[in-house]
Amino acid sequence: MTYCVGLLLNEGMVFLSDTRTNAGIDNISTYRKLFVFEEPGERIIVIQTAGSLSVTQTVIAKLREADEDPDASPYPSIMQAPTMLRMVEIVGQVLSDVTADISAKVDRMSQSATASMIIGGQRKGGSPRLFLVYPEGNFIEATEDTPYLQIGEHKYGKPILDRVVTPETSLEDARKAVLLSMDSTLRSNLSVGMPLDLLTVLTDTCQVQHQTRIEANDAAFQEMSHAWSKALRESFTSVR
Amino acid sequence: MTYCVGLLLNEGMVFLSDTRTNAGIDNISTYRKLFVFEEPGERIIVIQTAGSLSVTQTVIAKLREADEDPDASPYPSIMQAPTMLRMVEIVGQVLSDVTADISAKVDRMSQSATASMIIGGQRKGGSPRLFLVYPEGNFIEATEDTPYLQIGEHKYGKPILDRVVTPETSLEDARKAVLLSMDSTLRSNLSVGMPLDLLTVLTDTCQVQHQTRIEANDAAFQEMSHAWSKALRESFTSVR
Repeated sequence: MTYCVGLLLNEGMVFLSDTRTNAGIDNISTYRKLFVFEEPGERIIVIQTAGSLSVTQTVIAKLREADEDPDASPYPSIMQAPTMLRMVEIVGQVLSDVTADISAKVDRMSQSATASMIIGGQRKGGSPRLFLVYPEGNFIEATEDTPYLQIGEHKYGKPILDRVVTPETSLEDARKAVLLSMDSTLRSNLSVGMPLDLLTVLTDTCQVQHQTRIEANDAAFQEMSHAWSKALRESFTSVR
Repeated sequence: MTYCVGLLLNEGMVFLSDTRTNAGIDNISTYRKLFVFEEPGERIIVIQTAGSLSVTQTVIAKLREADEDPDASPYPSIMQAPTMLRMVEIVGQVLSDVTADISAKVDRMSQSATASMIIGGQRKGGSPRLFLVYPEGNFIEATEDTPYLQIGEHKYGKPILDRVVTPETSLEDARKAVLLSMDSTLRSNLSVGMPLDLLTVLTDTCQVQHQTRIEANDAAFQEMSHAWSKALRESFTSVR
């Protein structure tokens, strides 16, 4: 499984992904699930992926191909799409085609291969937008009321987001919220694993503000995790 | 859906169930999911249910019938079973038979009807034990390492249990832990709903210590829920 979360806030966007993939519990690997398409100052698109690695890798490869070699690709480039809505429609189309293609093959083995994606982005002159694309290619969008989207193993980490995140949340608090949301998920589900990819984008800059990989032995993350455990236990004691 | 949690602690057992059932999102009802078979001082068996109401009601009815009218029932009475292990085997057998019977009918409609159960109990002279019975009738048992079991919508409320509950946890803290675990679940999933059934059993008493129904407007529960929200937000602020 996977846990990815994306936040659309007034101040900017925050993305956090784990990196664990597994084919059965005894075949675990580390793969990046956070991808950036960027023309700094002009356009930024961040894609997070969950599901069958064969599907997600192929989709990202086809999106890159459409961007880098437009003549060779049947799809338009997401970096040239006139709007973010058109951009997510292209991703949805590629995802739908790849899923259908791979599913046709694995169906014969009575298996299924699906994937979903979170896509956030902004083009110069437009508003930042955040989408969740389903395996079928259709999608939903984050709103003021629900300023975050999750894919993968989303339930363990949802309570903290529900309690803390609003569009007014600062980027600093948002980073903390997604890391604590991930921390709860890591504790409760083995199929989600370190390292983590964290990326932030400031509104109207159309470029990555900060991107970092948090390794399993990261001191700051461990400290936050311990402090949170301690604070939770103290909260638990204080409540009657 | 449903959320039920059972705890096996040194001091005793704690059971908490919600009461929401739904056939589609527009057909919501309240049904008890916590059942007690008791011969005070001699034997206590508590059963919590999740899944198809037609399955769980039939299983409970057949268990009652076997107890009250042994001659009419093909099953032995769980109140007469020589051990808790034999008791849970009987429940597993009834659950398996009822599931197979009902599934055969609904299969024709391409539907499925399954259920799972948490069963805790103690007989005089034996140890308290806590089991989770799967739809197929097989089961697992709570241990020192994992002193709690959950059925239904279990993920939202798992992090707090993972952090707080050990066999040494007091019954008072355990009640608080299961209520906060339920609180997180209620907030994040509409298919789990008030009122709640809370029941505690002291070790070696073989009888219900306390059983209560917590209604939606219960002042103490609301106060705990608010205090927990406040404490969580303060914890969130305090962590860096």
